[in-house]
Amino acid sequence: MKQQRAHPLGIPTMPGSRTASAGETREQQSSRVTGIDRLMGGRLAKAVGFPPIAFALWDGIDVYTPPDETKMIGRLTFHDRGALITTISSPELGFGDSYSAGRISIDGDLVEVLYSAYRAMAEAGPTTGKRGLFGRLPKPRLNTRDRSKKHIHHHYDLGNEFYRLWLGESMVYTCAYYLNQQCSLEQAQIEKMHHVCRKAQLNPGMEVVEAGCGWGSLAMHMAEHYGVSVKAFNISRQQIAYAREQAKARGLGRRVEFIEDDYRNVSGKFDAFVSVGMLEHVGKDNYATLGDVVYRSLKRGGLGVIHSVGRSSTAPPNAWLEQRIFPGSYPPSLRDMMDIFESHEFSILDIENLRLHYSETLMEWLRRFDEHVEQIERMHDESFVRAWRLYLGGCAAAFRASTIQLFQVVFAHPDDNRIPMTRAHIYGPRGPHWNL
Amino acid sequence: MKQQRAHPLGIPTMPGSRTASAGETREQQSSRVTGIDRLMGGRLAKAVGFPPIAFALWDGIDVYTPPDETKMIGRLTFHDRGALITTISSPELGFGDSYSAGRISIDGDLVEVLYSAYRAMAEAGPTTGKRGLFGRLPKPRLNTRDRSKKHIHHHYDLGNEFYRLWLGESMVYTCAYYLNQQCSLEQAQIEKMHHVCRKAQLNPGMEVVEAGCGWGSLAMHMAEHYGVSVKAFNISRQQIAYAREQAKARGLGRRVEFIEDDYRNVSGKFDAFVSVGMLEHVGKDNYATLGDVVYRSLKRGGLGVIHSVGRSSTAPPNAWLEQRIFPGSYPPSLRDMMDIFESHEFSILDIENLRLHYSETLMEWLRRFDEHVEQIERMHDESFVRAWRLYLGGCAAAFRASTIQLFQVVFAHPDDNRIPMTRAHIYGPRGPHWNL
Repeated sequence: MKQQRAHPLGIPTMPGSRTASAGETREQQSSRVTGIDRLMGGRLAKAVGFPPIAFALWDGIDVYTPPDETKMIGRLTFHDRGALITTISSPELGFGDSYSAGRISIDGDLVEVLYSAYRAMAEAGPTTGKRGLFGRLPKPRLNTRDRSKKHIHHHYDLGNEFYRLWLGESMVYTCAYYLNQQCSLEQAQIEKMHHVCRKAQLNPGMEVVEAGCGWGSLAMHMAEHYGVSVKAFNISRQQIAYAREQAKARGLGRRVEFIEDDYRNVSGKFDAFVSVGMLEHVGKDNYATLGDVVYRSLKRGGLGVIHSVGRSSTAPPNAWLEQRIFPGSYPPSLRDMMDIFESHEFSILDIENLRLHYSETLMEWLRRFDEHVEQIERMHDESFVRAWRLYLGGCAAAFRASTIQLFQVVFAHPDDNRIPMTRAHIYGPRGPHWNL
Repeated sequence: MKQQRAHPLGIPTMPGSRTASAGETREQQSSRVTGIDRLMGGRLAKAVGFPPIAFALWDGIDVYTPPDETKMIGRLTFHDRGALITTISSPELGFGDSYSAGRISIDGDLVEVLYSAYRAMAEAGPTTGKRGLFGRLPKPRLNTRDRSKKHIHHHYDLGNEFYRLWLGESMVYTCAYYLNQQCSLEQAQIEKMHHVCRKAQLNPGMEVVEAGCGWGSLAMHMAEHYGVSVKAFNISRQQIAYAREQAKARGLGRRVEFIEDDYRNVSGKFDAFVSVGMLEHVGKDNYATLGDVVYRSLKRGGLGVIHSVGRSSTAPPNAWLEQRIFPGSYPPSLRDMMDIFESHEFSILDIENLRLHYSETLMEWLRRFDEHVEQIERMHDESFVRAWRLYLGGCAAAFRASTIQLFQVVFAHPDDNRIPMTRAHIYGPRGPHWNL
């Protein structure tokens, strides 16, 4: 590809037609912007809902500028015809791949530009940006036990060292909970863990099962601060290895057991069922199964807490994210989630949406990622860095644009009236409170 | 019917067969318990899931006793064959009508007996008690504007004096919010109103719309305690008349406007959209319309609060309640409710379940109803009293059995990031909090 670079910014162009007119190389001719290219660029801007972003083609000339240029916040440049066509035909996958390959560039603040594009698309209509101009909706992949392993390995086994660079020492890879503007990421992750523990009403001596435990931070937090014993499940080998090492170092080996296994193999009875950031990987087809697992493993009188990325309506996942970053992932709407709860008539007690907290969290991850970008590029390569910046920045923007949500759901068995009467156990009582 | 009464308890029996054997009147013969009657009684107990309640027929002999008699908490007596048959063929409607007519009696604590029957049915399977042994699921009625008026008139225009007898001075006919065991109904209703106002983040000068305002208690509370102005909609003539009188007496006439009109006719733009106890009467077919109403009337930056009876899974409403007590009513599952929110991508911020609070509230209403039962019987008649005791006691039992829920849902427009970051506005901050 190197020798094809003809663009002033050093961006590769598409191999062109075989005929060349006098005075132009084939390459020069094929890369020339045509009337059709301009038409397609305009159509794309229309499909995105006329965002406050200019669209330029590979001749550097804008093919679309926002109606109110004073509100323009950035520019998207397509560096070759292929990038334009693939973005039009499959807006999410084509855009993501082209951006990762450097065939699309973004001037202006990455998150701001993506945020305004997402809002414009959302306002233009719910399916805009999904189907593309001549695309079809992608089919979600199934998460069988074997496939789940592959899917989780793809993302979570990229190296603990890589994740530590931008997650920080806490190694928590889920939405933090910021009590206020001054809260650091580290504090906010600790607050999130307390928030989950309070919601689950953990008390000393309880037995807790955690489905999808990441690097084990929450499991260890529960054992250390709430005096519970924990069985924590995960199918990422590298995460489990790290978690076991940490538990040993912190003297928690007897109270926290890390099990390298699928949530579907959870056995035993527990006083609380906790799952933070796993549901995104479960896939809609398995929600009823997850409900069965909770039903058989949660004791009467115990609470379940499921924390997951979600959506405000049922829609296919972002195709690029699903194919390149999180294979097999699916962020459910609350309607989708009901497949977990309805068949066993679980009583949903509390749902909280923390979408802006996840935007804050992702902004901080992106800041730290950028601080270590050279090291990360040496670990992987330039397109990996571009893809991951698009993923982190794009998710920060999507939570801010409300095109994705973060739900924490607390629930109980229906034949259980020992449920919390108020939220005094989370926030403290105003005056005397219920004694149950 | 009076002259047909042959039962020792004075309960009418079914008109029997035309032939009579020697020494027995036709009536005596037809009322004799047969083997088929006993079989049917046993089948019914099985369908109810073998509850800890004895079933007796009109000869006074139990046809079913619970497996563990030490746990038996009451007895259901069918006083004639018709009551048995109608309960078998349409368990909710037949049972409710027969109980109201005095053709079924319940020994033991009414609420306890119903609670254990509901739990037994729920555990036996989700459709038990719905279809009956040879019944079909009832079709919900439509709530057109005209029909809604009739449906609301049926229940809410029974006389303000009647309601005041057992609702008390506060005249709030929705789930209260008990901060603790010592809380009185009056206090708990005030706490509920504050809870809703805090969730809606009301501030002085705001304009609020309330859809379905009952006797106006919440609208006046909002104006008095939060300095907002309110437009409150209701189609019950008697409630609106009462509310206007109260507002005048409390000097709130300029800040609270009571409008005798359908929620579908709400116009204007408001800083908050509040609806407490109306959704139950809206009907599933109109949820998208309600969503449209909220979408056009809630300003960006404003919050919506919808408080409603609900369910843990989608199911037809109790046929007797729907036909005799609340025509056109339907308690939605969260899945159903999504029809309100999804088409406009409203971001759901907070859902709280107060089912046990509604059980407490109903227990207190029933206690007060019973205190005034003679007066109420003079206002109406004995079967009205029996029906309303079944309704109040049955709902108290159903909330306790988790076969119905009480959801408070807070939501915002998607293009709105001035949403609350935490719940400090409801419960007070732990330490410094977000300044938005």
